[in-house]
Amino acid sequence: MPASLDEFKAIFPTLLEDLRKQCCERYELPVEVWQWFEKSLNYNTLGGKCNRGLSVVDTTQLLFGRDLTPDEYFDAAALGWMIELLQAMMLVLDDIMDASKTRRNQPCWYLVPAVGMVAVNDAPALGSAIYILLKKYFRGHPAYVDMFELFQEVSFQIELGQTLDMLVAPQDRVDLDKVNMDKYTSIVTFKTAYYSFYLPVAIALLYTDKASPQNLTQARGILIPMGQYFQIQDDYLDVFADPSVLGKIGTDIQDNKCSWLVNQALQKCTPDQKKVLEANYGRKSEHCEQVVKDLYDELGLDKVYRDFEEAKVADLRQKIDEVDETQGLKKEIFEEFLRKIYRRTK
Amino acid sequence: MPASLDEFKAIFPTLLEDLRKQCCERYELPVEVWQWFEKSLNYNTLGGKCNRGLSVVDTTQLLFGRDLTPDEYFDAAALGWMIELLQAMMLVLDDIMDASKTRRNQPCWYLVPAVGMVAVNDAPALGSAIYILLKKYFRGHPAYVDMFELFQEVSFQIELGQTLDMLVAPQDRVDLDKVNMDKYTSIVTFKTAYYSFYLPVAIALLYTDKASPQNLTQARGILIPMGQYFQIQDDYLDVFADPSVLGKIGTDIQDNKCSWLVNQALQKCTPDQKKVLEANYGRKSEHCEQVVKDLYDELGLDKVYRDFEEAKVADLRQKIDEVDETQGLKKEIFEEFLRKIYRRTK
Repeated sequence: MPASLDEFKAIFPTLLEDLRKQCCERYELPVEVWQWFEKSLNYNTLGGKCNRGLSVVDTTQLLFGRDLTPDEYFDAAALGWMIELLQAMMLVLDDIMDASKTRRNQPCWYLVPAVGMVAVNDAPALGSAIYILLKKYFRGHPAYVDMFELFQEVSFQIELGQTLDMLVAPQDRVDLDKVNMDKYTSIVTFKTAYYSFYLPVAIALLYTDKASPQNLTQARGILIPMGQYFQIQDDYLDVFADPSVLGKIGTDIQDNKCSWLVNQALQKCTPDQKKVLEANYGRKSEHCEQVVKDLYDELGLDKVYRDFEEAKVADLRQKIDEVDETQGLKKEIFEEFLRKIYRRTK
Repeated sequence: MPASLDEFKAIFPTLLEDLRKQCCERYELPVEVWQWFEKSLNYNTLGGKCNRGLSVVDTTQLLFGRDLTPDEYFDAAALGWMIELLQAMMLVLDDIMDASKTRRNQPCWYLVPAVGMVAVNDAPALGSAIYILLKKYFRGHPAYVDMFELFQEVSFQIELGQTLDMLVAPQDRVDLDKVNMDKYTSIVTFKTAYYSFYLPVAIALLYTDKASPQNLTQARGILIPMGQYFQIQDDYLDVFADPSVLGKIGTDIQDNKCSWLVNQALQKCTPDQKKVLEANYGRKSEHCEQVVKDLYDELGLDKVYRDFEEAKVADLRQKIDEVDETQGLKKEIFEEFLRKIYRRTK
């Protein structure tokens, strides 16, 4: 049975208390430092669906092949929260770079009046919390060093993905000549797939002592393409989903995002259609946005996506079917991930 | 003989090449990602005096009690460059928070036209480079985990110091009631002393396998007060040094900085003088700045500082004299640090 969000959330206060002790007792810093950090931790780490964190718990359970003891549950959830902290750090920075307005139905952290550009310091502090907690709970674990290195490497991968994203789709100018499917794939692999799909499973493999090179390679071989598919879905839903179901109004076209759809459009359009795209993509205008949407319809991108999805999922199912379970990896882990995202509408 | 800056700088291209390989060969990212990162690495890590990095080399030499072999020199310099990378990350963020204009005689990175808020992603990428390099060169070192944890903990300490600094002296309003000497000491300890003084020696102790708890405790007991003294000097020089010798014009008074001088003034002023201070500190006005400087003169802060310096240095010399060298620590390490800063004028 998949882990419940409530049970997972019940672990968070214990982790906050650990961080409070580090600031107030070990470092003896004035209490207002902790009060500020706690506010940032709550504001930026909570309020999401915690899919990545919950995946660590689910995957750990599947790897053990049984229910977790309370201590094991705590450990897996704590590792899950560390992924949520990593995400919190990256979202705070991403929102500043993209000049976003809201996140999880509240103003972005840097837009909270008392915060402002202090957010650029709060973000790495959220990241630092990972290593304080990792040391406290896993210093004696045989995979401690690998866990440490994994979090560090995945952080670096996100940062490099952000760099490429910014070079391909800068805020201020539209340049569709810089965009292509290879770069798109690199961006989503580094910015999203590593931390959202590979990291939860890799950390659970390390925790359960099943992180053999073969298992890690097999996991990466399925989860990176699955993460790419997930992001392509995200890009598709941004334009084609019903906003009332999706829970937000898509802004990728106006925001000049290097979306899967615009890459598909560039591959399929005539020179004349390309001119229309160039003149209307990435403009802060509802009219221009509608012109781009009409072009997407002309090019049949809705159907292109649905065909892509079926082919991709067939391919992933075959990869899952071929997984070698002899070193303790389980096909169910990947089936569970796929079940959660296949044909999702939000 | 202290390490030369040229020799130290000659190591940097090798480290850049390691990072290039990680981006271009291991991750197979488009070359423009590396070109961007390389630009950030060069812009933000070079151009300083490299005092912290050089200290690792000097300390390592003193701990071994002999000249370093070429391999040892490389190792110590690589560790030194990691401290420079940590500083680079923090300076990029500090400049954004303080809305600074220049750093090391060039525009702050976030003010470089093509950069802007992408700097908030470049900063943690500079930090991530530390762990890529640490893994490449020290994964087999017995103190690898301790080095890793030390860099991580010191990063967290700087972030907490920044938080306190921002709470005590926010950009937008003057509130001298929030300031006091205890908070001042916490800020400079966390923001400066740990990474600038304790970190270079602690990392050299770890590298040379002399990081016994007693040695680390002794080093901290001298280097944290020395780092505090260094920052107090910095605050003093900002107001009292000859700008042509110092190489810059001080801005602490106009910038509302929680400086040692304003804390001294608050301790010594009458209620009437406090009103003058409140009305003129932290205002973007040369006239107000001069009123504050005149008050500092009235209160004799120049002499207060000079007396403080002599008493502090006498105290540090006594502490150094009492160092127990039986576990391989050397008094000369601390004498060398003190020699570099005592009565400095820039």
